[in-house]
Amino acid sequence: MTPAEHAQLALLLEVAGTPKPGNVDRDRDFPDLRFEHFLAGAIGSGAGLRAAEKGTPVGEAFEEAVEGMSQQEGGNTQFGALLLLIPLVKADELSPDGVAEVAEATTVEDAEGFYRAFEYVDVAVTDPPEGMDELDVRRGSDAISALREGDLTLYDVMELSEDVDGVAREWANGFERTFEASDRIAELDGGISARAAQVYLEFLAREPDTFVAKRHGNKVAESVLVRAQEALQEAREGNPELVTAFADSLVEEGINPGTTADIVAGGLFIALERGISP
Amino acid sequence: MTPAEHAQLALLLEVAGTPKPGNVDRDRDFPDLRFEHFLAGAIGSGAGLRAAEKGTPVGEAFEEAVEGMSQQEGGNTQFGALLLLIPLVKADELSPDGVAEVAEATTVEDAEGFYRAFEYVDVAVTDPPEGMDELDVRRGSDAISALREGDLTLYDVMELSEDVDGVAREWANGFERTFEASDRIAELDGGISARAAQVYLEFLAREPDTFVAKRHGNKVAESVLVRAQEALQEAREGNPELVTAFADSLVEEGINPGTTADIVAGGLFIALERGISP
Repeated sequence: MTPAEHAQLALLLEVAGTPKPGNVDRDRDFPDLRFEHFLAGAIGSGAGLRAAEKGTPVGEAFEEAVEGMSQQEGGNTQFGALLLLIPLVKADELSPDGVAEVAEATTVEDAEGFYRAFEYVDVAVTDPPEGMDELDVRRGSDAISALREGDLTLYDVMELSEDVDGVAREWANGFERTFEASDRIAELDGGISARAAQVYLEFLAREPDTFVAKRHGNKVAESVLVRAQEALQEAREGNPELVTAFADSLVEEGINPGTTADIVAGGLFIALERGISP
Repeated sequence: MTPAEHAQLALLLEVAGTPKPGNVDRDRDFPDLRFEHFLAGAIGSGAGLRAAEKGTPVGEAFEEAVEGMSQQEGGNTQFGALLLLIPLVKADELSPDGVAEVAEATTVEDAEGFYRAFEYVDVAVTDPPEGMDELDVRRGSDAISALREGDLTLYDVMELSEDVDGVAREWANGFERTFEASDRIAELDGGISARAAQVYLEFLAREPDTFVAKRHGNKVAESVLVRAQEALQEAREGNPELVTAFADSLVEEGINPGTTADIVAGGLFIALERGISP
């Protein structure tokens, strides 16, 4: 398969993994965000991913992928995952250095494409850092003149958000957790989507999810972390029931650790490119 | 979405529908044929479907789609569905007449592509009709000289098999059941993959599945039909449990009504093209 195909398959394997507490998965739908919205999002993003593979710049390819992804009624399904996948697809060498090279080479035009992508879907964001109101992504294309005045590349924009956004942190840190996810997927046995669900739980138990923190505050994100640790511990002792109960309770509470899922999708892509195959 | 994207999404929505007695679905894997093999098959067939959309002849596009589909370890996932989808994607007008035009315009070269496609996957087939041993698809490329000598187009080959193969029957009959499946999907309410699962059960209760007949004989296919009728009746009376039990028992018996699933996938494509959207 081509890198663009592996990226689409990574999106599908990610959403198919179950139980994946708090996210739509093979067994769980939210009322307005269902499994089939993610299937449509993965197919719709194909043209943008293929454009990235063929040399279209990061920002333009990302915008095209998000536009394609948004052709379904569920809203934002894979915005964060695509923000990781586009530079991964473009990397000449699939390594932390290789993808850092792509990230650091981004331009102001790439940042503009990223901002325009927000016009296609409603993405959860927080207030921008102090003094950066003009760069608020919620301003969409209106923020673009501020980007130009500040001569800010997409990499610069990601660095400004790395404290509050787990996907931006990957951009700033050579995709460290994404590569870790890939290594862990390769280590595990069994079906690939099941491995991805296991890695998702392990990551959830290690660091608070920034998407949960944005939507529900740091306390809720911390509590999800502790509950994930308990569920993981029980699963290791041979009692998977607590994971299922945890998964069901997060769905009920509407808590959705999306950043962790995004990073697992990126990890799946790397694992597929390195030869793991369904 | 483009027709090729709708075709890929149709493959995904088909396999995601549950319960779909006897087939892999969102809730059921077979030991060696799992949900994720179907996800990979749907992504892998994309290049062939896009080629069909851009004017590549039926046989060549089908061969490319099957080759792409086969890039996973589960074996044959969507051979029959692609044999319906390729002419549907190519139809200028998405109607029984429009797709019959594509089918009837196929050439000997298209038949050759179809035969070559059998080299990529192990497809269940029966003995060919009397006196047609030379055309046995199990002979793969070796049967191609017989095709040339007989000047047989892909449409001719399909007509020869229409009595024993439900997909070939669609080719010979203007895709009658496929369009019926689409109409029924449009009539129903709810999520699209759930509608598809309902149509699958209704079709299973109406006509014996030719894939089951090939693999297990006509008696087993008849018994599946009767059990589907009972399950459907119970579901209509508000007891969906029998459908689930029926689904589990077919998986246990290794009975897999694949032709019915193929026709539902074709119906999903038509429904998506006509504006139904997840």
